[in-house]
Amino acid sequence: MYSLLTARSTSSLQKKLDLWRSTGCRVALVPTMGNLHEGHLRLIDIARLSADQVVCSIFVNPVQFAEDEDFSCYPRTPDDDMAVLVEQGVVDLLYLPDVDTIYPYGTDSAVSIQLPALSKDLCGAMRPGHFNGVASVVLRLLNLLAPDVLVLGDKDYQQKILLERMIRDLHLPIEIVGVEIHRESDGLAMSSRNAYLSAEERSIAPTLYASLLALADALRKGETNYSQLELIAIKKIAAIGLEPEYVTVRRVCDLAPAGLFKPDDKRIVLGAAKLGHARIIDNVRV
Amino acid sequence: MYSLLTARSTSSLQKKLDLWRSTGCRVALVPTMGNLHEGHLRLIDIARLSADQVVCSIFVNPVQFAEDEDFSCYPRTPDDDMAVLVEQGVVDLLYLPDVDTIYPYGTDSAVSIQLPALSKDLCGAMRPGHFNGVASVVLRLLNLLAPDVLVLGDKDYQQKILLERMIRDLHLPIEIVGVEIHRESDGLAMSSRNAYLSAEERSIAPTLYASLLALADALRKGETNYSQLELIAIKKIAAIGLEPEYVTVRRVCDLAPAGLFKPDDKRIVLGAAKLGHARIIDNVRV
Repeated sequence: MYSLLTARSTSSLQKKLDLWRSTGCRVALVPTMGNLHEGHLRLIDIARLSADQVVCSIFVNPVQFAEDEDFSCYPRTPDDDMAVLVEQGVVDLLYLPDVDTIYPYGTDSAVSIQLPALSKDLCGAMRPGHFNGVASVVLRLLNLLAPDVLVLGDKDYQQKILLERMIRDLHLPIEIVGVEIHRESDGLAMSSRNAYLSAEERSIAPTLYASLLALADALRKGETNYSQLELIAIKKIAAIGLEPEYVTVRRVCDLAPAGLFKPDDKRIVLGAAKLGHARIIDNVRV
Repeated sequence: MYSLLTARSTSSLQKKLDLWRSTGCRVALVPTMGNLHEGHLRLIDIARLSADQVVCSIFVNPVQFAEDEDFSCYPRTPDDDMAVLVEQGVVDLLYLPDVDTIYPYGTDSAVSIQLPALSKDLCGAMRPGHFNGVASVVLRLLNLLAPDVLVLGDKDYQQKILLERMIRDLHLPIEIVGVEIHRESDGLAMSSRNAYLSAEERSIAPTLYASLLALADALRKGETNYSQLELIAIKKIAAIGLEPEYVTVRRVCDLAPAGLFKPDDKRIVLGAAKLGHARIIDNVRV
């Protein structure tokens, strides 16, 4: 039976990392908030292809939740997570820091990261301070682990772009590997927050993806009236009972809006909607 | 004749650093804004004692100057600086990045660092955003160079405490070495900005240090009426023609104010004043 190596303290983490470093190993980090599902396992598989040693971290970061958000009820399933990782045998280390380890001076007076304007757009407009909070924890994890590779899922695409920007702007020598969205059989993007959906909500949730897909198809056929296409998608999503927050066509590399597109720019369609107690997000590359 | 090795680009910097790393060398960084004086040379001497290889950086960081401050007229003397370093033969590498190298996405939309409340106190109250700007450049330098040791002067004591806080809070594996203030023969702390002083201003400038020294002496004798002692010092400084900004007794380790002192806390007296076109700061440990 595979035995899962875990580290909770900084010293036990460093001990393991030092050993790997001394033998010239490449290390990949897969940061998660736990409640591991197949989407996370895909990230870990890709990490395995990119490095010699794979570390998965589980840390529910209080700093990225607003006061009215779901920090206290976010699904925490440490025993299940460990069982999955033991069964799969695909990570070399599970890092389980507590809040005091990550934020040694407390969360209220922590040194924080301020990301550029994109952090206040799209999901950032709905969740003020969210991406700065994500940056604050990810920078700490990167400094603690100094991985060669950071593996991030494409579902949180805006997060990936912003973290890539942070890493480049702060000159961290880290490669980012993005991983395609993993979906349920009906198309819904896998997410821990899908657990918040009732059976009825779950049945209409794939409409978000379907609408983004239809919009992307229209773009592929040459349509370019972005605001009209976005409106059609929003109406479709609202008609079935979701509360759309945004549907938008952006540039893939930096999420710049359509007004800044150049002829050869690759595009991506992103959307977000509320559904019951959940907020679901998704995206489709054109 | 000693020939000074310089790096301007990130690639030439990394090439040299990689070579050192591969042989297990410890690297110290002495970050400066140039216009090198004897105070800087002391920092370099101490760096030499703490590491195998010493890098001095010269970079006038636009982000730490407010719009009404002296960024454009800050003394820049690159030829003199290089001549001094060649003559002294004490640094292994002079790092001279330009603004585009340090801030690849520009200064206006750069990822920035927000320091805790102390950054808005003392010098930070007089220079809003200054310490966040310092943190933003120092974090980039630390990421670019990954030094084992960061050497900082005690003259900018609040800066040293805040950078230490940033380094610990962000989990950077870097040792900070502080270096005592180097003074002119009449006691004035050495500073590039002393060049802004007229002959007459220069003659009264040491009053700041003398007043802090007197306050520290009173504390050593057991006096504890901090606010009264601070007021006496401020009056003395103002009487001779300086414009005092603050004189304050704080805890050495974190600059906490007197109200938070515990019996065995070590104390430090800090002061700042305007004098002509210069702003002079100083401190004395009790």
